[in-house]
This record gives sequence, structure tokens and C-alpha cells, in this order.
Amino acid sequence: MDIYAVILAGGGGTRLWPASRRKRPKQFLPLAPGGRSLLAATVDRVAVPLDHVLVVTAAPQVAEVRAALPALPPNNVIAEPVARNTAPAIALAAHELIRRKAGDAVMALLPSDHVVTDEAAFRQVLEQACAAAARHLVTCGIRPSRAETGYGYLELGDATEGPAREVRRFVEKPDRVTAAQYVSSGRYLWNSGMFFFRADRIWRETQKHLPEAAKAIESANYANAPAISIDYGIMEKASGIWAVSGDFGWNDVGSWTALADIFPAQDGNVRLGGPQVAIEAKGNVIVGDALVALVGVDDLVVVTTGDAVLVMPKERAQDVRAVVQELERRKMEPYL
Amino acid sequence: MDIYAVILAGGGGTRLWPASRRKRPKQFLPLAPGGRSLLAATVDRVAVPLDHVLVVTAAPQVAEVRAALPALPPNNVIAEPVARNTAPAIALAAHELIRRKAGDAVMALLPSDHVVTDEAAFRQVLEQACAAAARHLVTCGIRPSRAETGYGYLELGDATEGPAREVRRFVEKPDRVTAAQYVSSGRYLWNSGMFFFRADRIWRETQKHLPEAAKAIESANYANAPAISIDYGIMEKASGIWAVSGDFGWNDVGSWTALADIFPAQDGNVRLGGPQVAIEAKGNVIVGDALVALVGVDDLVVVTTGDAVLVMPKERAQDVRAVVQELERRKMEPYL
Repeated sequence: MDIYAVILAGGGGTRLWPASRRKRPKQFLPLAPGGRSLLAATVDRVAVPLDHVLVVTAAPQVAEVRAALPALPPNNVIAEPVARNTAPAIALAAHELIRRKAGDAVMALLPSDHVVTDEAAFRQVLEQACAAAARHLVTCGIRPSRAETGYGYLELGDATEGPAREVRRFVEKPDRVTAAQYVSSGRYLWNSGMFFFRADRIWRETQKHLPEAAKAIESANYANAPAISIDYGIMEKASGIWAVSGDFGWNDVGSWTALADIFPAQDGNVRLGGPQVAIEAKGNVIVGDALVALVGVDDLVVVTTGDAVLVMPKERAQDVRAVVQELERRKMEPYL
Repeated sequence: MDIYAVILAGGGGTRLWPASRRKRPKQFLPLAPGGRSLLAATVDRVAVPLDHVLVVTAAPQVAEVRAALPALPPNNVIAEPVARNTAPAIALAAHELIRRKAGDAVMALLPSDHVVTDEAAFRQVLEQACAAAARHLVTCGIRPSRAETGYGYLELGDATEGPAREVRRFVEKPDRVTAAQYVSSGRYLWNSGMFFFRADRIWRETQKHLPEAAKAIESANYANAPAISIDYGIMEKASGIWAVSGDFGWNDVGSWTALADIFPAQDGNVRLGGPQVAIEAKGNVIVGDALVALVGVDDLVVVTTGDAVLVMPKERAQDVRAVVQELERRKMEPYL
């Protein structure tokens, strides 16, 4: 079975500001174990030959992708002329594989900005998912460890096929009570955003559910495609979706506090980057190359870059968006 | 009356780390109103011609002094070959003035690292002090506004002479209860470290009370002088000391929190340097050129430099010394 890793690296996002900027979004940040970029770590962990890795990214980020992955064949970076969310981006990659006479290959669709701490366990799930993808649309679910309201969920059905299990439906981000019910039921998985299917299959699904996207890509007018996610645009409509699941230390690094779940604390604090001096200071998440000295402060996020510093309690980590909005309002472009 | 401003710029100190470093101590930092260095602001406020300004500094800081005061005649920077505290440094300047046939000039001895916000009021006190210094050893006292335990005090006697009042004794930094008694008695002033006397007078006092220092200076063997402050070495022993006092917004910038007493708050926070974004964040003192974004934190000190960031509650401001000690212990020279 021919397998292509198709890595979606077109995202922006503000939740890791000030390290992430418009010109250098999260996937390029050295937040993976070993100090690699999240993108490079994503490529490393799938362990397929580089000529079978496609990276789909926004046109302005092509150079950054090539710099992060110098050994990747240049033709394997696919530039989205404009951002149209994941469904058209995936169809674009499928169309390219069909053009390369690889329509029967399985695409392992992977976000470029997640962390996986157990790569061996991940590869086992990847293998199961690719096997199932010979026949099905496959998604990878994460067994929920808490009543997270920031993720979508997969509701499982009863049918099984080896390690794969039928998906009854995709469900939106739930409220806290609903999330708790999902977790206790044992019938729900987190939607990780990883998908597996044959290129020709997802192309047919695109023609069926998003005909404008298929037409836009065929006519090389990508901007005409609707901006829609693979979840909304295809997975919630298609039938015959199966899930594999596993426990491989998955983390979507959705905020600075996520680092505390990925990296061990040193001296009571999680530190990525330069040195720290912590005096009566515990539970902080500290990121950046500068020396950071903390005295008598607990449970803060402190992020330094060359030109900016962010300080906030861990529990306010989502409010970094408000900072970015304020910078946008004040038109402080150099910091965006 | 001939007046020389003699500015003591040889200090080190760690309380404003990470902005202050061994190679760039506090007096060179742009902490004076208007963004001037404390040293330059000290020279500006005495308003005497630059050929009547002497700056006494440590030998390694001569270049930095010249850079901070480009219009100062080069010969008016007096280098202490080694640090011997204030009494020998002052005698060195007095000896130089006698050598220049200005033994009858009044020396206005001023620390280089204090802030004065009301310069007109300061100059009025300066004038009174210099007038009294034609006959006396004169110190400038600050009327205490709180029971500060970080300063020495002057106990006043009853004799007056115009605006000057006799000093009964110099007293050490008191404990909190004693400090409160001092303040409520109305008979005590803070010792500001500013002194006024004729050059020949302080030289005679040095010969009398610190003969080794006088001998070391006369024989050009400065290192032989004992290291001792003017307070201990001379003022606590000499008789006939008078004080002038005034209210001119004096602040010795003894910690980062002092900036909150000097500069007005913007948007609820005191900010020196670059831009800030403060979301539900009040009472913070923020220093440095980087953009600082604070979310949901109050009453912190946040100081940024190119290579280091300090975060601590304002009430822990004195503990920056512990950070510097830790850096010394770890031999992290670039940050010292």
C-alpha cells in the first residue's frame, strides 16, 4: 500500500502569541520535544520517505516550510493561493496525487502543529488507520482524559473492523456538562483532526459534497472554492466513516499552558528556551531565549521574544487573543 | 562664591537588575524624567557651568561617563583607581580642587543616581546649602514622608542660622518602631547623601579624621586609603554640622517600585520604555523597550532588557538581590 503523509501547514492562529506571528505561525515554533519545530516533528514521526510527504501551506509560507524541511523535494510543497480552510486544501492535495498517478494511495492527513510524545504508539495507530483507509474514510480519535470543551468529539457506533470502529456522528465543541457526559459514556473520542483515506476516494467525496471546490481546483481557480473545514464540509455529511484510536501523548498545543502537559517541570517550572532563576516561584510556564528571573510568583505564563513579553496567569491563557485583538485595533503591525 | 558640583558616579548596586549591570550601573540608566540618564539629569539640575562640574567615578566607568556627558571637559572626570567608598572619593575631589587653586570653593556633593522631580525647589535648597557651606559642613535632609527603614536619619538640634539648622547626630537605618518615632517627633530628616562644604574644609576634616586617606591621596597611592563612607568616616565624628531641608520630590530610586512614586501611571500602570498592552492589569511597574503585554496580573514589577526579563510582585522588589546572588553563584557572568 502506497502511503502519502499530507501535512496541513497553512494555519495561522493567535493563541501562542507573542512567539507565533502572522509570518511565523505556530507550526514553525520549536515547541516539539528535542527543540524541533512542530512541523519538522510531524514529518519525522510519520516515518515515510520524504518523496511521499506533501506539505500544503499558504503561499506566503512556502519559503518558511522549505527552510524548516530542507530535505523535502521542492515540488512536494503545495501552495494554497488563498486560504480556504481544510476541505479545499485536502482536495488540492488529492487532486495532485491523482495527477501523479497515485489516486489509489492512502493519504495520511496530519495537522502540522500538534505534539505527540509517544511516537512508537503513534506509528502503530497510523498503521491501523492506513490499513482501514484502503476501504473507508478514517479518522483518528483520542480517548478523552478530561471533559474538554475546546475540542469536537466523535460519537462511536457499535460496528468494529479489527481495531477500527464505526463513527456514528461528528459532534461540535460541547458545553461542560455535555462534555462530562461524553467522557463518562465511553462512547466518545476527541476529534484530533487527523484523517486517512485514499486520494481518489476523498476526491469523489469532494465532488459529491463540495462540487464547487472540486470545480475550482480542476479549473485552477482555487479562490473560487468555498472556505470550509473537512469536518463540516465532508465528514459530517459522508457515510461509512470509521475511527481508530490510541493513546500516544497527543496534544494540540492550543495554549501556552499546554506546554505544562508536554514537558517536565524543572525546579518547579516548565521552561522552554533560555535559562531561568526561580526564587519561591512554582508552576510557571516560561518560554523564550532570554534569561527569565521570577521571584515570588506562581502559575504564570511568561513568554519572551526579541521584541515582546507576555505575562498572565495560566488560567487566563486563552485571553492572549484579547492582546492580539488590541494590537490589531492599535495597528501595531510589527507585533502581529 | 565659587561653586563646584562634585558628582559621585562610582556606584554599583544590584537593586535595579536586570537593567543595571556591573558595566552599566544605575546612574547610567534612563530613569530620570524626560528619558535622561540619572547622571545626566543630576548634572542638568545643579545648573552650574560644566567646567565647574567634577564627576568622580570608578576607573572602568570613565568611558561611560564621558559618553553620558559629552560636553563635560575630559579633565573633569576623576577616576578612582580602586573603589574606596565615598570619604576617599570626596577627599580626592577636594585635593584636586586645591591643586586647581580652588580650595575656597564650595563643593556641592551629589549622588549621581537619585531623582528630583521639582528642580526649581531643589535649586533653592542648593543655594541655601552652598551659602551655609561657606562656614559649615552642611548636609541636605529630606523631610520624611513615611517611616522608612532603608535610610539613615539626621537628628536636628535647636540652633538655627537662616534656613539651616544644627545637626545633633547622624543615626543609622532604624527599625520600624524607631523610624515611626523619628517621623512623628518632627526632629529627624532623611539623610539624602548630599553634602556641601568648602574644599579646604573637607580636606582638613579628612586629614583629622582619616589621616591615612589624606596621606594615600597626597602620595598618589589611592589604594592605601581605607574604604569608608563620608557618613561614618567624617560626618559622624566632625562637629559643627548643619542641615538644610526641602521638599523637591527627592527619590533615591532604591528599587523598581520607586518608579511608581516618580512617574504617573498610564492606563493604571507605570510604564518606562516601550509600549504596553494591559488587560485587567493594574498597579504594575513595567520597564524596558520591548512590548509588554499583561493580562490579569496586578502589582507586579516586569523589567525587560535585550537578554533578560524579571517578574516579581512589587512587595518583593528588594529580593532582586537574591536573583543577582544566584546568578553569581552560577557564574552567569553575561547577566551580571
